[in-house]
Amino acid sequence: MYTLYFAPGTAAMLTHLVLLECGVPYELKAVDLAAGEQRSDAYLALNPGGTVPTLIVDGAPHGETAALALLLTERHPEAGLAPAVGAPDRAVFLQWMFYLANTLQPGFRQWFYADEFVPDSAEAIAEAGRQRIEACWERIAAHLDNHGPHMLGETFSVVDLYVVMLMRWSRNMPRPATDWPSLAALATKVKARPSWKTLYEREQLSEWA
Amino acid sequence: MYTLYFAPGTAAMLTHLVLLECGVPYELKAVDLAAGEQRSDAYLALNPGGTVPTLIVDGAPHGETAALALLLTERHPEAGLAPAVGAPDRAVFLQWMFYLANTLQPGFRQWFYADEFVPDSAEAIAEAGRQRIEACWERIAAHLDNHGPHMLGETFSVVDLYVVMLMRWSRNMPRPATDWPSLAALATKVKARPSWKTLYEREQLSEWA
Ligand SMILES: N[C@@H](CCC(=O)N[C@@H](CS)C(=O)NCC(=O)O)C(=O)O
Ligand SMILES: N[C@@H](CCC(=O)N[C@@H](CS)C(=O)NCC(=O)O)C(=O)O
Repeated sequence: MYTLYFAPGTAAMLTHLVLLECGVPYELKAVDLAAGEQRSDAYLALNPGGTVPTLIVDGAPHGETAALALLLTERHPEAGLAPAVGAPDRAVFLQWMFYLANTLQPGFRQWFYADEFVPDSAEAIAEAGRQRIEACWERIAAHLDNHGPHMLGETFSVVDLYVVMLMRWSRNMPRPATDWPSLAALATKVKARPSWKTLYEREQLSEWA
Repeated sequence: MYTLYFAPGTAAMLTHLVLLECGVPYELKAVDLAAGEQRSDAYLALNPGGTVPTLIVDGAPHGETAALALLLTERHPEAGLAPAVGAPDRAVFLQWMFYLANTLQPGFRQWFYADEFVPDSAEAIAEAGRQRIEACWERIAAHLDNHGPHMLGETFSVVDLYVVMLMRWSRNMPRPATDWPSLAALATKVKARPSWKTLYEREQLSEWA
């Protein structure tokens, strides 16, 4: 039994989707970001970074959505969400997980939290974030054009869930990720999965239909 | 046999250190960052992000230093550099790997490449980067104070190599990471390892002695 601390539509979506794909029981606890609950003492004791998600695993709290996604693939190998250790495409799989965590996800932090970076230059920071993000879509779309339709070719994996979560974050940007045809095609596939539909119900999301 | 494309003292250090710790044969190829070789067509064909490191694994090029470090721990489990899949501290291990990749390493990108973010506000961007980095040191030092002396307690792991590489990057900052006693103690341990000394010789590094 897992417990997921989440807020709707955030980085916690990835962990939530992987829990659903694994078909394991979990409990949801909402964290009210608008009210600053992520900076309460109680929450910081679970997650010193003050961000969602936090997942309680065997009684202990852990953060970092990509780490949690990877951990769940390892704990529930029967779900077939990632190449196993030693499998030929393990290197490509890990590379994408860390590329998204190290490059694309921080681009969104810059876009959405531009005024935390440098309050006086928030607009310029956001604009630079936009460029970083679009460069990432360019690269991912080129990869899908050559090696798709999934991030690992014929095989669906958590990398696809991670990419499509990030794509959704771009929906109100000047150039949303769905502008790139191979990305749009990937999103269509992922959004057709039962996990995505259940996630929308449980997180009460309605946009990007 | 691995081939590592690197530049001295960069993110490639982590991959290089892990190769040394695993005791596996590898060949080094220097990439001249000052000359812009990372943006040559030949290099971009290996690493579309135009960054070091790239590691050739079974004939195929892969990027992302943290992904490569993790991959090498999986390919060479006998080196004992990471908790195995299913081990009790696997969750903590993965959490730190992604925390460093998602939060601290991007802070350095902001510090060192501030003029790429927003040329007109480079100074303010760098300053914001400094604050992000120091907040990370604060958090990691608190973790070491309570759960050290290594990032995974009594056991050395690649997380320690990753942290100490990033610490080294802070050596000329207003407040270097060695200002935090538990971080300084970790660096002393890591720098005493044969891998660190060999790395200094092979990458011809001399500072931060
Ligand atoms: N490194 C964290 C970052 C997660 C993150 O940035 N979460 C955002 C929501 S998408 C958050 O909690 N923001 C609230 C805040 O920063 O105050 C992870 O990957 O899990
Ligand atoms: N996401 C990459 C980033 C690596 C990176 O930023 N490398 C720097 C050196 S520390 C680089 O190659 N810089 C050259 C450039 O960006 O032009 C990784 O983690 O491997």
